[in-house]
Amino acid sequence: MTGTPSDTRPPARRKVHTPSERYGIPVPCTEVTLSGGHEPFRLYDTSGPGSKPEVGLPPLRAAWVAERGDVEAYAGRGRSLADDGRSAVRRGEASREWRGDRREPLRAKESQRVTQMAYARAGITTKEMEFVATRERCDVELVRSEVAAGRAIIPSNVNHPESEPMVIGRAFLVKVNANIGNSAVTSSIAEEVEKLTWATRWGADTVMDLSTGDDIHTTREWIVRNSPVPIGTVPIYQALEKVDGDAARLSWEVFRDTVIEQCEQGVDYMTIHAGVLLRYVPRTARRITGIVSRGGSIMAGWCLAHHEENFLYTHFDELCEIFSRYDVAFSLGDGLRPGCTADANDEAQLSELRTLAELTSRAWEFDVQVMVEGPGHVPLDLVKENVDLQQDWCHGAPFYTLGPLATDVAPGYDHITSAIGATHIAWHGTAMLCYVTPKEHLGLPNRDDVKTGVITYKLAAHAADVAKRHPYARDWDDALSRARFEFRWEDQFNLSLDPDTARAFHDETLPAEPAKTAHFCSMCGPKFCSMRISQDVRRYAAERGLTDEVAPRAGMDEKSREFVELGSSVYVTP
Amino acid sequence: MTGTPSDTRPPARRKVHTPSERYGIPVPCTEVTLSGGHEPFRLYDTSGPGSKPEVGLPPLRAAWVAERGDVEAYAGRGRSLADDGRSAVRRGEASREWRGDRREPLRAKESQRVTQMAYARAGITTKEMEFVATRERCDVELVRSEVAAGRAIIPSNVNHPESEPMVIGRAFLVKVNANIGNSAVTSSIAEEVEKLTWATRWGADTVMDLSTGDDIHTTREWIVRNSPVPIGTVPIYQALEKVDGDAARLSWEVFRDTVIEQCEQGVDYMTIHAGVLLRYVPRTARRITGIVSRGGSIMAGWCLAHHEENFLYTHFDELCEIFSRYDVAFSLGDGLRPGCTADANDEAQLSELRTLAELTSRAWEFDVQVMVEGPGHVPLDLVKENVDLQQDWCHGAPFYTLGPLATDVAPGYDHITSAIGATHIAWHGTAMLCYVTPKEHLGLPNRDDVKTGVITYKLAAHAADVAKRHPYARDWDDALSRARFEFRWEDQFNLSLDPDTARAFHDETLPAEPAKTAHFCSMCGPKFCSMRISQDVRRYAAERGLTDEVAPRAGMDEKSREFVELGSSVYVTP
Repeated sequence: MTGTPSDTRPPARRKVHTPSERYGIPVPCTEVTLSGGHEPFRLYDTSGPGSKPEVGLPPLRAAWVAERGDVEAYAGRGRSLADDGRSAVRRGEASREWRGDRREPLRAKESQRVTQMAYARAGITTKEMEFVATRERCDVELVRSEVAAGRAIIPSNVNHPESEPMVIGRAFLVKVNANIGNSAVTSSIAEEVEKLTWATRWGADTVMDLSTGDDIHTTREWIVRNSPVPIGTVPIYQALEKVDGDAARLSWEVFRDTVIEQCEQGVDYMTIHAGVLLRYVPRTARRITGIVSRGGSIMAGWCLAHHEENFLYTHFDELCEIFSRYDVAFSLGDGLRPGCTADANDEAQLSELRTLAELTSRAWEFDVQVMVEGPGHVPLDLVKENVDLQQDWCHGAPFYTLGPLATDVAPGYDHITSAIGATHIAWHGTAMLCYVTPKEHLGLPNRDDVKTGVITYKLAAHAADVAKRHPYARDWDDALSRARFEFRWEDQFNLSLDPDTARAFHDETLPAEPAKTAHFCSMCGPKFCSMRISQDVRRYAAERGLTDEVAPRAGMDEKSREFVELGSSVYVTP
Repeated sequence: MTGTPSDTRPPARRKVHTPSERYGIPVPCTEVTLSGGHEPFRLYDTSGPGSKPEVGLPPLRAAWVAERGDVEAYAGRGRSLADDGRSAVRRGEASREWRGDRREPLRAKESQRVTQMAYARAGITTKEMEFVATRERCDVELVRSEVAAGRAIIPSNVNHPESEPMVIGRAFLVKVNANIGNSAVTSSIAEEVEKLTWATRWGADTVMDLSTGDDIHTTREWIVRNSPVPIGTVPIYQALEKVDGDAARLSWEVFRDTVIEQCEQGVDYMTIHAGVLLRYVPRTARRITGIVSRGGSIMAGWCLAHHEENFLYTHFDELCEIFSRYDVAFSLGDGLRPGCTADANDEAQLSELRTLAELTSRAWEFDVQVMVEGPGHVPLDLVKENVDLQQDWCHGAPFYTLGPLATDVAPGYDHITSAIGATHIAWHGTAMLCYVTPKEHLGLPNRDDVKTGVITYKLAAHAADVAKRHPYARDWDDALSRARFEFRWEDQFNLSLDPDTARAFHDETLPAEPAKTAHFCSMCGPKFCSMRISQDVRRYAAERGLTDEVAPRAGMDEKSREFVELGSSVYVTP
């Protein structure tokens, strides 16, 4: 559980690259070297090539974007100190302003749509698609066709060339998002960049910057420039800062400006709470926990204060136009998600989902990629209904859920209560899971919490892949189980989601190096090892031609004598 | 996460007693005092009255057993130093021999059956049944009829009068077992008693003593005398010690003697691997992880070495006779359970389950209570089949599962991978869950691991109760969610499964005392609090007669003006 982001990996885990089929693009993965002549095992790798925070990552996709010839560089909307909030204005300068490479923002040339969905629908296979097909070990045509149909998205803002393409869709591996971001009460830019790097090291597929405190613009700049994974945001948070935290003063104009600011920076997907309609708000009044989404409550407050329809809804087509020029994907926010198990699957929640379905279709008219956000807090017996309805109503657009938490009684353990719901909902078709850390409901995650959240969700996502019978998914379980059965302790650690913790826990009981090659394990000691006796049984059966068919009784008497002669005790104490 | 077993509880959580309906037996529960005039909330309580380890607990049930007039005290089998293993014999004395109260063992008078099942079938409602009905807040007739039908058990050895009765069955709250016990490589008697007390403090409903190291008999004596919950064991572990760890030297006679020794001590249920039949053993040969149950591998080794049928199977009726005289329940062991997801639901596993079903019916002929053990490691899509088949084949006998783990790739986090499967299988009808700690596959749990395992499984069990729509289950979620929504921070902590951790996590971000009465939370700070804005929305809707029906547009303009006038900003920064 210790170590810093710059820790070297265990030597048996190293990053290697596989060339993609058509263009030979080097696609990263983690190769685990195994002992005893076993083939190396390859794991999906989200950690990126590594960067110095003040320099940022190389622009992997810049040439791919440029060579398509459909974007233009332009001056951009003009940076304002107010983008960093009131304290920056007071100070008269941004804190730790980005000094690394600066590029003019790109956007689609007039009347072009530069989204992966537009290309996919036009039958074009992009390098992004090829990259993800190699990562996913699937046919690139599957990627293209799923993106074309709206059933998968490849978030890839033309202004975030540093990102390594990844795909979110139910036909592919289940993905995990990690939330980071400062708040009015805590944390610095450097800490947030460190959390980003730490989260992607442990397997976060995307990262959302949910900053609400000072230096929002600058924090995001550092994050985007250093991120090898797509970055998501909730732009209403920053818009609210620009109106001094007074929701009633929010307007489409302020919001639009903020969205463009973030499009130009390279944000890959944005949560937009356009489904919180005025008429839905009173439907939350009888709930136990009302509205628990920050964005949802901001928009609900605005709707009531103005008695006008949510401006995100009324201006949705304009948002689509903007997104289509940068290839920003919608993450349609579930502002009315349930905040406790009692409120799950209620009228407020499902009304909003209907509206999100309508908005999905509208975005697709602009070739804009869409995923749809889901709850929240849901008893296990109501989980499947969530993904079934979303998949049905939203025509298969990827579902992206927060948990859901299967019970409300365990604050401090909500990474677990939510992983229970998350595995279940992912098995039934959710494409990406937003992690929950042990600090949920109690405070902001620190670095250790980020790691615990990511690992917990990686295991949930993988368990769902196994349950979905995703090709290759169980190979990983099998490789680790074989190592376990054969007492290849180092292989077992190196194949683990978190080798450091596995090794540390083992060493607590049996710290000596020989214990890692011992033919017994740290639970039972040498005499009581079931793995060992089971190996004896297998060897016995194999050597004597017994199969897993029913062994005929005849002939067994002789064999049992042999067995006794060959060792008698199955517990040969060393 | 800190503290010692003798920690005083938070003052807002105290043990109170409710008198049972007919006999007025005081039944314990935890009462949580809430603030703001809210009714106190009552939680199920497994911690017992508390004991000095060297004195033990008072014999709560002794009079109940005696007044039935069907047991007799007798001299007992005679204690031997060999019961504590070779090192005790070498030393010539037991280590920390029990010096507390000693009672002659009880057993049924000749031809009597003193099991709860026998009473239930005879239409007798015992005090044990009444105690559990009060704990479960259900009708006592439900308890009696479920026990009579074999669908529930009340483990209650007449020689363990210290235990507070509890019921295991799918009609009741899902229960959690915690494993403790020393091994050849670690730990002392005092540590094991401390783990017992610690486990029941956090909610373990039963505890299994899986000791395999020195001082087995004496360790168990200390545990039973101090345990307010039923104690389970795997007697083959001790039997193996008695034959110097040489499985081939095991015999029915040694085993029988060990079982009687443990019956006389007060063990409430015993895992018996009587379903590992000779002909099933070769069916494990092609598995990835063979046989992973220690008891299963011992019996498989014995069967192969002797080429004889498992003596636990051939002598099963004799075991039933013995168990019926003490009211010891069978926990029919799944010695061939899968040890990795690849081996789940295979022929070896299901063959054994068929045999366990046969043994269940045989035990019931002797009025002996039975539960059936289940896996293990199972992909989520195969979990339900396990409980469906077990419930069908075993005529509804309670299922007692270890996890199952939903994936094999996360050693160090197997409390989580298994809680995912456990919640799922409990939702579908498993009656008791055996916890898994973070050390699973890596080492033996220490005190912190025991707590993490118990809390993780309590949340899994409760999430299953909620999903099963168990009466009262969601009340707990609702009470906590209301406290959360109303910023009653102390109530939220005190209602939590683990108040200490919830409070500590909150204090990490906002340690000052005023923060616990603040009307915002530690995640977002004062400006961004969705709970708060949502309360504003609710108040607004309530005061103006808006319901959760669709609010008519007409009249809303006026209301929105009011809303603005009444506060304008929904974010009134303090």
